Amino acid sequence: MPKSPIADPNEDYPRWYQDVIARAGLAENGPVRGTMVIRPYGFAIWERIQADLDRRIKAAGAQNVYFPLLIPESYLQREAEHVEGFSPELAVVTHAGGKELTEPVVIRPTSETVFGEQMAKWVNSYRDLPLLLNQWANVIRWELRPRLFLRTSEFLWQEGHTVHASEADAAAYALRIHLDVYRDFLVEMLALPVLLGRKTAEERFAGATNTMTCEGITRDRKALQLATSHELGQNFARAFDITYTAESGEVEAAWTTSWGASTRLVGGLIMGHGDERGLRLPPRIAPIQVAIVVVRDEDGAVDKARELGDAIAAGGARVEVDADTHTGFGRRAVDWELKGVPVRIDLGPRDLASGEATLIRRDTGEKRQVPLGDLPGLVGELLETIQSDMLADATAFRDAATTDVDSLESALEVGKDGVGRIEWAKLGPEGERRLLDDGISVRCITRPDGTVPESEDEPDLLAIVARAY
Amino acid sequence: MPKSPIADPNEDYPRWYQDVIARAGLAENGPVRGTMVIRPYGFAIWERIQADLDRRIKAAGAQNVYFPLLIPESYLQREAEHVEGFSPELAVVTHAGGKELTEPVVIRPTSETVFGEQMAKWVNSYRDLPLLLNQWANVIRWELRPRLFLRTSEFLWQEGHTVHASEADAAAYALRIHLDVYRDFLVEMLALPVLLGRKTAEERFAGATNTMTCEGITRDRKALQLATSHELGQNFARAFDITYTAESGEVEAAWTTSWGASTRLVGGLIMGHGDERGLRLPPRIAPIQVAIVVVRDEDGAVDKARELGDAIAAGGARVEVDADTHTGFGRRAVDWELKGVPVRIDLGPRDLASGEATLIRRDTGEKRQVPLGDLPGLVGELLETIQSDMLADATAFRDAATTDVDSLESALEVGKDGVGRIEWAKLGPEGERRLLDDGISVRCITRPDGTVPESEDEPDLLAIVARAY
Repeated sequence: MPKSPIADPNEDYPRWYQDVIARAGLAENGPVRGTMVIRPYGFAIWERIQADLDRRIKAAGAQNVYFPLLIPESYLQREAEHVEGFSPELAVVTHAGGKELTEPVVIRPTSETVFGEQMAKWVNSYRDLPLLLNQWANVIRWELRPRLFLRTSEFLWQEGHTVHASEADAAAYALRIHLDVYRDFLVEMLALPVLLGRKTAEERFAGATNTMTCEGITRDRKALQLATSHELGQNFARAFDITYTAESGEVEAAWTTSWGASTRLVGGLIMGHGDERGLRLPPRIAPIQVAIVVVRDEDGAVDKARELGDAIAAGGARVEVDADTHTGFGRRAVDWELKGVPVRIDLGPRDLASGEATLIRRDTGEKRQVPLGDLPGLVGELLETIQSDMLADATAFRDAATTDVDSLESALEVGKDGVGRIEWAKLGPEGERRLLDDGISVRCITRPDGTVPESEDEPDLLAIVARAY
Repeated sequence: MPKSPIADPNEDYPRWYQDVIARAGLAENGPVRGTMVIRPYGFAIWERIQADLDRRIKAAGAQNVYFPLLIPESYLQREAEHVEGFSPELAVVTHAGGKELTEPVVIRPTSETVFGEQMAKWVNSYRDLPLLLNQWANVIRWELRPRLFLRTSEFLWQEGHTVHASEADAAAYALRIHLDVYRDFLVEMLALPVLLGRKTAEERFAGATNTMTCEGITRDRKALQLATSHELGQNFARAFDITYTAESGEVEAAWTTSWGASTRLVGGLIMGHGDERGLRLPPRIAPIQVAIVVVRDEDGAVDKARELGDAIAAGGARVEVDADTHTGFGRRAVDWELKGVPVRIDLGPRDLASGEATLIRRDTGEKRQVPLGDLPGLVGELLETIQSDMLADATAFRDAATTDVDSLESALEVGKDGVGRIEWAKLGPEGERRLLDDGISVRCITRPDGTVPESEDEPDLLAIVARAY
């Protein structure tokens, strides 16, 4: 067994995470501290995430737009909590075009303010509502402790911004996005089971009246916030004067929402499924689903591999043929494992002689000999099996990492290295503060059946507590 | 005839351009001077441009990546011409995370430098070459005289960056991108005939040894640069130490290229096809290809329109049913013209009574009555006819706007309000400077057959001269 090119995740999880990103060719640090260069394989994963989320966002009726990167500093100051939340993280442009600017401008940390300014012009009557917009963009939030994909000074994301005539309509739309876009995407595409719930007042988005979250659980038993949807009440509508004439003729302040998911999802994918051999990608998101590896360039093996590759690709799978026989087979096999490609098909001399190939599942490590002619018919179904098995595996892991507790003391103990579930009434904001002293936070407040509560005051709510990235 | 909502392009072309952008809902100014808010209809056009260019770029073998927005100021200074070219346009971040930065960072005006730094790490051996990368990103170049889409302080684009083992390989790849990606896209998708050629030394990209351009002709007879591809020689390879070990074992400096096209393409589309009624969109790029307009909500007209819409959409066309009968028909008809939707189908009470609809081509204004049952079968072919007719029309316009001249004096005269074509040997760099005094530039140097010359020294080259946006 050759030495593993990556650290053991059970010994040093942060180092394992860095190693996987570097060795699988996902990303590396940019020259300015906290920034990230996303390499082709990492970006191919992001492109697939983007395409699927974009389809779901459009199906929910939102239209794509593009708003400016640069925002007048004064805009952020119009909403008191918002400016307080974001000020420490701002990057400020003071000079441009060879001159000092009369008013400094900030690079967007998020775009509620600049959307608010413009949406106020576009909304006049109740007939203009709801106004449902989304953009794919880069944002800057200066990070003191950056970590690739999870926390970078610049990241890529989509941010939705909507305007509604009533609080109920805004709440319903934010929930729709949260469930039909984020939850369904995470479960169906990334095979990540998610904990759904509301954030506490402590953890809410700066300027929101309600923040809903999808929380994932990493393989080192921490929580990772994967997507959030915010009801902003009338806070931004009042700050930016987004009003409309109701059917009654009265002029009313509107209600707004915002919601986002970012390149952090790639980090969630790594930490949600990765193992001691590297990445494990769910087939639906994998840029390469099947790697056909030519062991040695003998007996027409390369042609056979190409032929097989074409036959499998014709069934709709994303296939790559690895005929790089100048590199040793062992090293290439380890690389395909590192990259998390769901299915590997090895074509060795003995396989070819017997008209067979070796089929290896990345998720379970299971190996078997399969007649070449059976492979094209078999792969499509196998990919779907792997997809659902990976979701089941991640769900089992999450459930095993979760413990019901009934006191602050037990929550403190469990939260050190796992996920605790405790009645919110038993914990409360005071217990929450105590946990925070130990670096444990309330990830969300949820109903016993795992659905999102409409308020913190519902009976029987549970708090999910854990350390978090 | 109601008063036109837009200025007459023959009287005030710049005003007409602004009016079309505003009234068709394409974009508006952002709060920071020179920035742009791209609205849903404008962004839908850009998304279609992006998707098609992206497909062509991938077919040419390049892989997508994402590099940081922020670049250390010192990087730009490593290539002398590059820093001189871009310094006046830079936006500089001096403060971030609540502190003054020890080294100011600039917002990328283009990314040769930061790609150069990273590519030097990725390239070691001739086996790593060619390295073919592309990114979709926003860039900032501070504009003193901004104009929506054509010249904005922030714009969206793709920028390709490639590394090659030899000058010949770099030149061949830059040319391949220029023809197979840019030219073919412009001609096939945007129906814009393009003038192909090399830029003169005066007009070259800062740091390039050769810049190739695709120049479009606007309807006010000016030139508009639509896409450029640069051979960078070894300038950036030497500045960023991109070297490789050749098969011979020698360490050699590599050769690089870069190439880009931006949201300016939307401006090119407006100015290349628009007329006194607004936009005219070629069907292949139009977000909506067919608008079915219900004249009055009578006799089940809305249901008929939806049924017809479904039948036409089933054939693959992008259809929108306009059943907004609260707004007068005349105003809606004018709006669909403004938005440049290639085909309009009016369903009026008389049409319905006779089982017909009125079919209107946006490009020619041609109207005819068509039996409802014939429409689904007819639309697909009609859209292709419109696509090729629009290219023919734009080509005829360009040819009529172009005059062969044989002296500097005639070039000065023709270039005032049209395109001049003159032997480059007769003009030369001195003539070029004289033209520049009058605001006329050499848009490109081209061969008599319209192909791209390999050098300025080939015999019989022609210079294309015009005013330009």
